[in-house]
Amino acid sequence: MRGEIIAIGNELTSGRIVNTTSGFAAQQLFEAGFDIYAMHTIGDTPALIGEALKRALKRVDFVLVTGGLGPTDDDLTTEAVSEALNRPTMPNLEILSLIRKHLDNHTDQPASSLDKLAWLPEGAETLHPQAKMSGFQLIHGGKPVFFLPGIPHQMRTLLVEQVLPRLATWYEGKQLTSAQRVYKIFGKSESEINHQIEQLVLGDDVTIGYYPVFPDVHLSLIIRAENKALVELRAAETFYSVEESLKSEIYARNQQSMASVVGNLLTRQNKSFSVAESCTGGLISYMITSVAGSSSYYLGGVTSYANSIKTEYLGVKNSLLERVGAVSAEVAEKMATGIREKSGADISLSVTGIAGPGGGSTEKPIGTVFICLASTAKTEVQRFRFSGNRYEIQHIAAQTALNLVRQHLLTK
Amino acid sequence: MRGEIIAIGNELTSGRIVNTTSGFAAQQLFEAGFDIYAMHTIGDTPALIGEALKRALKRVDFVLVTGGLGPTDDDLTTEAVSEALNRPTMPNLEILSLIRKHLDNHTDQPASSLDKLAWLPEGAETLHPQAKMSGFQLIHGGKPVFFLPGIPHQMRTLLVEQVLPRLATWYEGKQLTSAQRVYKIFGKSESEINHQIEQLVLGDDVTIGYYPVFPDVHLSLIIRAENKALVELRAAETFYSVEESLKSEIYARNQQSMASVVGNLLTRQNKSFSVAESCTGGLISYMITSVAGSSSYYLGGVTSYANSIKTEYLGVKNSLLERVGAVSAEVAEKMATGIREKSGADISLSVTGIAGPGGGSTEKPIGTVFICLASTAKTEVQRFRFSGNRYEIQHIAAQTALNLVRQHLLTK
Repeated sequence: MRGEIIAIGNELTSGRIVNTTSGFAAQQLFEAGFDIYAMHTIGDTPALIGEALKRALKRVDFVLVTGGLGPTDDDLTTEAVSEALNRPTMPNLEILSLIRKHLDNHTDQPASSLDKLAWLPEGAETLHPQAKMSGFQLIHGGKPVFFLPGIPHQMRTLLVEQVLPRLATWYEGKQLTSAQRVYKIFGKSESEINHQIEQLVLGDDVTIGYYPVFPDVHLSLIIRAENKALVELRAAETFYSVEESLKSEIYARNQQSMASVVGNLLTRQNKSFSVAESCTGGLISYMITSVAGSSSYYLGGVTSYANSIKTEYLGVKNSLLERVGAVSAEVAEKMATGIREKSGADISLSVTGIAGPGGGSTEKPIGTVFICLASTAKTEVQRFRFSGNRYEIQHIAAQTALNLVRQHLLTK
Repeated sequence: MRGEIIAIGNELTSGRIVNTTSGFAAQQLFEAGFDIYAMHTIGDTPALIGEALKRALKRVDFVLVTGGLGPTDDDLTTEAVSEALNRPTMPNLEILSLIRKHLDNHTDQPASSLDKLAWLPEGAETLHPQAKMSGFQLIHGGKPVFFLPGIPHQMRTLLVEQVLPRLATWYEGKQLTSAQRVYKIFGKSESEINHQIEQLVLGDDVTIGYYPVFPDVHLSLIIRAENKALVELRAAETFYSVEESLKSEIYARNQQSMASVVGNLLTRQNKSFSVAESCTGGLISYMITSVAGSSSYYLGGVTSYANSIKTEYLGVKNSLLERVGAVSAEVAEKMATGIREKSGADISLSVTGIAGPGGGSTEKPIGTVFICLASTAKTEVQRFRFSGNRYEIQHIAAQTALNLVRQHLLTK
C-alpha cells in the first residue's frame, strides 16, 4: 500500500521554513509498513493544490495533505479541496461551538478569526476528538485523504493518534512486512563504510543505504518479505553480520544519540560527569542535558569564554594563559582537571579551540581544537584540526569529545 | 521564470533524513527572483526519477535535481537521467584524473569506488571547477537542468557559486522584481498578529504570510512589481507601516536570531554578559556562542545541574536549597547575582526550572521555570509556566530569558 504526501505553504516553496512535517510523516508511515511514492511541496495556490491532490488520488492508495488549514487569510487548503473535489464547504456548528469554547479560554485573540476553522468540505470528518486542532478526513473515490495542520507538533499528534490507526484499519493485512535499522557511525566516510559492507553477503532482500548526516554517516538496512517470521529471521542474521563487521565503530542505533549512548554508559558504570567548554560554548552541556534523566549522572559544566572565567572557575593560572595561550594542550589539561576537582566528578571533559571565523593564526589555524579527558585512571589531551564553518567546527568538536568519553567507557 | 526542485533519496521518502537542501535552494532561488512551482521528493528509483524530470521539463523553465550522485551502490540518479533523456553515460577522463588526484590525498578509501563519479550523461558539464564535488549541468530542450549532490554543504556551495550565476545569465532580465522581509515575533499567536496587521491597508501587491516557527511566529511580507524603483518604494512604505504597528514586538528581521540581536545590543552598549543555567542545561550559552564574535561581550556561564555546583560555583547556600528547593525564586536570584559577582559581568541571567519528563509536583508542575535578570540597576525574578515536552520547555525558556535581556537593553 502506498501513499503520497503533499505539503502546502508559500513559506515552504520560498524556502523560508524547512519542511520537517513531511519527513516525520514519511518515517511514521514507512515504519507502519506503508511506502511513500512521492512527497510534494507546493505554495498556497488553490489551482496547484487541487491539481496535486487529483493526480495523487489517481495513482496511490491514500493521500496526506499538510498545511494551509489555519485561521489566517493565507490559509487556502480547505477552499482548494472543496473546489477540486466538488465538495462545497459548510459550517459544522458542533465544531464551531467547540472551537469557541476551547480556544477562548487560552487566548485573547478575536473569536471571529477562528470561525473559519469550522467550515469544512462536504463529507469531512474532523480528526481531533474535541476539535482542539484543525484537521479532517475525507473518503474520496474509496481512498482516505487526511488533511493535517502544518504546525509540527499538531501535525505529529494527529498523525500518530488519528491517521496511523485509521490507515491500519482501512488497509488491514495489505502491507508488506519489513524491518529497518539505522546504524550511526562517526569518523568514517560513506565510501569506507560501503567498502566494508561490500565484503559481507547480505542477500537481495536487504536494501542498504549510506547517508552522510552531519557530522555522522548513517547506514540504513531494510529487510522486506511476505511474512513476519521470515522478516524477523533475516533481520536477525543481517544485523548480526553488520554489527560483527563494524563493531564499536557503530556508536548508536535508530533514535539513539551520542549523548544518550554516553549517558547510558555513565549510568551503567555509576559514574558522574562534568564539562569545561571554551569553543563549543555550552553545546556539549546542552547535548547531554537534552537527554531526559541526565541529572542522575551530569553534575554540570562551565563555559569559560573569557580568560577570567578560566582562572576563577577552573583554576587555570594567568601565567600559563600568558605563556601558552588559551588554545593549548596545557590549558585544556588544566581545564579538565580543574572542573573535575571542583565538581567532584568521576570523569571530566574539556574543549578549547578556534571555531572561527576570527582568531586563527599560522601556528593555530581555525579548526584547531584541544580536547582533554580526565578520569581517576588518566588525563589525556589530543590535538585536532577540524574543517568547516563555525557551526560545523563546534558540532564536530562536541561530537568528537563525547565519542572520546564513549570509547573511554567502553574500554574500561 | 519558474523552476522545480527534485530531491532524490530513499533516506528522504522513508523519513529518516529531513530534507533541508530543497528548502535552502528554494530560498536562494526565490531571493534571486525565480519562483518555485513545486518541490518533489522521491526515492532512489530510476523510473520515478526519469518521470519526475520529464514532467518538470514540460512545464517549467529550469530544473534542479539533488541527491543520488554519490559513489555508493544506492546512488542511481546519473543512470536514471541517462536513460530518461536518452543520453548515454561516458567516462570523463579529465574528471577521473582530477578525482583521483584530489580525493586520494584526503582519504584512505579505495580509489576505484570513486571512478563512478566520472561517468556522466552525454553533454554534461561538470559544475565544480576542479571536480572536487559531484554535480553537473545539462541543457535539455533549451532549458538548464542542474544536478547537485545531496550532501548539504556541497549542495549549498555549488548552488550559490555555480547554479545561481549560470541561471542569472541564462534568463537575464526575465525575472519579476521583488522584495521580501521576514519579521520574527516571540510571545504572540498567529491570529493575534493577523488581527493587528489587518488594521493596516497594505495594498494588493503585498503578499502576507503568518507562520508559527517554534518558538516564534514569522510574519513574511513580499512585494512584487514590474520595475525595481517601484518595488523599492512600495517596500519602504510597507515595511514602515508594519514596523510602526508592531514596534518592539518584532525582535528580529530575516536571518537575525534572538542571540544575535541581544549580542548587537550588548556590543552597542558596551556591556558584558554571563549566564547560570539549570533546566536549560547550557542551551542559552550555546545560543549566544553560536554567534560569531560573541567572545567580545560573553564572558561565560555555569550549568549547575547538581546542587553541589550551585553551591560551589554560584554561592547558593545549602540551607537555602534545603528550605525552598532548587526551583524557586530565591535560588534563581542567588544564581544570577552569584554568576554576576564571580564573572564580573554587567548583566547576568539565571534559569532554574523543571523541563520534565520527571521532577514535577502539584506545587511546581513540569514547565515551572524561574528566570532572573541581574544588572547594576536591578535584580528581577519572574515565574513562568511553559507547556510542551522537554525539548520545547528548554527552548521556550531559553528564548524567553534572552528576550528579557533584549527588553531590558531596549528600555535603558
